[in-house]
Amino acid sequence: MQCPIRITCLVCLGLAVWQAQAADVRAQVQEYRLAHESAIVAQLDSLTRLKSIAADSAGILATAHALEDALKQRGFEVSELSTGTGSPPAVFGSLKAPSATRTVLFYAHYDGQPVTPSQWSSDPFEPVMREHALTDHSRDVDWKKASPPFDPEWRLFGRAVSDDKASIAAFLSAFDALSATHTHPSVNIKVLWEGEEEAGSTHLSKALHDNEQRLAADLFLIGDGPVHQTRRPMVYFGARGAMGLEATIYGPVRALHDGHYGNWVPNPAAMAATLIAQMRDENGRITIPGFHDSVRAITPTEQVALKNLPSVEDALKREYGIARSEGGEDLPASLMRPALNIRGIRAGQVGEAAANAIPTNAAISFDFRLVPDQTPAGVRKTVEHFLTAHGWTIVSEEPDLATRLKAPRLIRLVWEGGYPALRSALSTPAAKAVIATASKAAGAPVVVMPMSGGSVPLYMFADVFSAPIICLPIVNHDNNQHAANENLRLQNLWDGIDTYAALMTDLNW
Amino acid sequence: MQCPIRITCLVCLGLAVWQAQAADVRAQVQEYRLAHESAIVAQLDSLTRLKSIAADSAGILATAHALEDALKQRGFEVSELSTGTGSPPAVFGSLKAPSATRTVLFYAHYDGQPVTPSQWSSDPFEPVMREHALTDHSRDVDWKKASPPFDPEWRLFGRAVSDDKASIAAFLSAFDALSATHTHPSVNIKVLWEGEEEAGSTHLSKALHDNEQRLAADLFLIGDGPVHQTRRPMVYFGARGAMGLEATIYGPVRALHDGHYGNWVPNPAAMAATLIAQMRDENGRITIPGFHDSVRAITPTEQVALKNLPSVEDALKREYGIARSEGGEDLPASLMRPALNIRGIRAGQVGEAAANAIPTNAAISFDFRLVPDQTPAGVRKTVEHFLTAHGWTIVSEEPDLATRLKAPRLIRLVWEGGYPALRSALSTPAAKAVIATASKAAGAPVVVMPMSGGSVPLYMFADVFSAPIICLPIVNHDNNQHAANENLRLQNLWDGIDTYAALMTDLNW
Repeated sequence: MQCPIRITCLVCLGLAVWQAQAADVRAQVQEYRLAHESAIVAQLDSLTRLKSIAADSAGILATAHALEDALKQRGFEVSELSTGTGSPPAVFGSLKAPSATRTVLFYAHYDGQPVTPSQWSSDPFEPVMREHALTDHSRDVDWKKASPPFDPEWRLFGRAVSDDKASIAAFLSAFDALSATHTHPSVNIKVLWEGEEEAGSTHLSKALHDNEQRLAADLFLIGDGPVHQTRRPMVYFGARGAMGLEATIYGPVRALHDGHYGNWVPNPAAMAATLIAQMRDENGRITIPGFHDSVRAITPTEQVALKNLPSVEDALKREYGIARSEGGEDLPASLMRPALNIRGIRAGQVGEAAANAIPTNAAISFDFRLVPDQTPAGVRKTVEHFLTAHGWTIVSEEPDLATRLKAPRLIRLVWEGGYPALRSALSTPAAKAVIATASKAAGAPVVVMPMSGGSVPLYMFADVFSAPIICLPIVNHDNNQHAANENLRLQNLWDGIDTYAALMTDLNW
Repeated sequence: MQCPIRITCLVCLGLAVWQAQAADVRAQVQEYRLAHESAIVAQLDSLTRLKSIAADSAGILATAHALEDALKQRGFEVSELSTGTGSPPAVFGSLKAPSATRTVLFYAHYDGQPVTPSQWSSDPFEPVMREHALTDHSRDVDWKKASPPFDPEWRLFGRAVSDDKASIAAFLSAFDALSATHTHPSVNIKVLWEGEEEAGSTHLSKALHDNEQRLAADLFLIGDGPVHQTRRPMVYFGARGAMGLEATIYGPVRALHDGHYGNWVPNPAAMAATLIAQMRDENGRITIPGFHDSVRAITPTEQVALKNLPSVEDALKREYGIARSEGGEDLPASLMRPALNIRGIRAGQVGEAAANAIPTNAAISFDFRLVPDQTPAGVRKTVEHFLTAHGWTIVSEEPDLATRLKAPRLIRLVWEGGYPALRSALSTPAAKAVIATASKAAGAPVVVMPMSGGSVPLYMFADVFSAPIICLPIVNHDNNQHAANENLRLQNLWDGIDTYAALMTDLNW
């Protein structure tokens, strides 16, 4: 809606002045970055050299200490959150801004996924700059000898460089840019850099609970994950939950000749197939009664956001070699629904090794993706009720003969912990402010995704804090996160610096 | 129906005399066996020492020559059937009986399954006698030093000892018993001892065709397979056919994060499950339209035979640790139907190795069991028509990207050769004569099974010859056929000698 008074309106005048200020800050930050590209890359390079993986506790500690120093040098009050004996420390820093009324907590993690060096094209902890994504033709770049400005398509390769050290480096560089131009943050800043996200954030929940007062904020910004596949900056407002289930279906105690017993001895591989087909239809829709009972409806605002997402389906189908989507829907709508994935299935043998036998058992690895307001306990109850209603006897250990002889359909379930989904409202003042600020920083509207299909344990924050939790990733979608040859595209780092600077100075709600 | 005239009837008198003669022969044969147990076992022991497995062509040839000598010593006219260069010879022998009007061909195979010596408790080609089936407590027996009569529960362990060298040894000992008691065979005898049954009888079909005149008989008796689980002697009148199929279902070209793509990228493991559930219902009934069109009805005589089969279901359920049969039927009825077995299924990973990913493909190993009058070609056509009707694109090679992008459901099929079933009529005069003779030899009615669930390529005989093909196994059902520690229970050898002797002297139709 346009202001009816227009240019003479004081509110509009104030907004125009503020927009002009914001534009100034953006220009100043970009100028700073252009003048300091080598130093900015050097900082990320140094961080990436620190071996902050679970298997290297010295590397983890060294990284935590380096980050604590970095924050202290910038005037932050710094401490380590108690996360249990020997576990990676969570680095906490806070900085009050003069006359600020709001506090924003920036979260990222400094630990990286484990590495299998043999799969990498270069040492995961000796970062290498390359001209572009890794191909047979990609060439190394000696960025230390190159003159800035660097080609923004260059990529720095190393473990954790994008997940999440780029977010940390962008935050620090943005802060430096503001300091250099004497621009004060408009919000009180808190940072929480976790050191065991890739190991399941085992101690995070307790740390949040134990430090509720210290960590309290009006907004939690999560700097994890990649931007949109179109390369456009993105804000996302939640993530699906996850829950794994390993199931074993029992047939005869030993493999039996399927000629002499086929049709008579139950075949566990066929039972597994039937069970899966009863749990989900041909289009991947979960058909377990009651499974969707606690699924929260998608709001009209979220519907609009979903419709506005750039279409990437055709390109993805070509890339992945698929002729159709599973449910006939577009990708964003698909990811708003709970999913029942089959991670694996295994029974008997196939190909050359196949024997004419009825296998002794069939193993299925399930992976549920949850949406609000489903809970792991609720999913478990619904699935187990469904199984019982279909005549299955559920056990949690390898069954003995007596149990086998009593149970016409016998299944062993091993549930993984799992956690619920989170979807923050798109229409809160804080949400609108984050979208507006990130868009201004990007110079174009950011992609607004109501919920990520992949899981992030955002619920841990929601369990303790009522303030909005919003995710603001900066790294390229093709960063090989969790795989070999993880990499960061420089333009994403530059964009990230712009975004973090804007978030520290422009957020207004 | 009893004869209304009774004892004065000439027919009854003739029958009574013949029965008395048969009883005499049986007694004489048993007497001979009791006096020659060591020599009889020694003969089987010697045969088992010959390494007649496909991997040992010298062992195969040595066995063939030993069998040719054994037949020549007994007055048979002996030759080798041409089976192709370098392939194991089929030993053929014939012996005319004075005034016989019928000819019976006895078939068995002298080759054994391959061995994995590490899985055996003793050398597969150094036969060991044990007190009973292999357990932690089973003791070896030095039968060469023991005084006959031997304990009939003793078992001789070695490769091929039961499958089929016991049939060959029983035939030879029965012939020797008749010779010793100057009892002439009542039928012309032909024997065909094949050397590559365990390798798929690759050359048998051609050998039968090429030697149609020489092999012609009024009855083909197949000495392969085990007797009934109750240990009662058995005659069976056919076997299900078999056909294997390896299928691969294609998902994305690389494994994809199931959080970011679950519900959108088709999951090949789930597609495999759905497909299997569409092909067979929860009770194992094949639901492929048209699959049963050419299934021959079970005759009233066969129905009666099925009803008369001794019940072994409860014992088998306890032994195999199952609480129910797949289709709720009894075992014999189950085996009269075609079966669709899943030999194996494989997609992604399970357990510790499971990743939160959509697998790239799913492999299913199918195994069809056919009944008369289904044909492999008919099954293939029906299955492929079903797949096409369900929207599947069938390929025979690994598909390229263009093919993947065009096919919403893509499946690669690799069909194995396969062969049809055979079921001989129970009511022919020859069938009745075999049942009567085998029953008399056993001193009790034999078990009559219309068709074996397991497959034997009997169709090769049926393709060339129109005479009845009837299977007369002698070995114990728990002989570990095809596995390690194959063994023969002595009582089964003694019973087999009685049976073969009766078949050579008593068959009358």
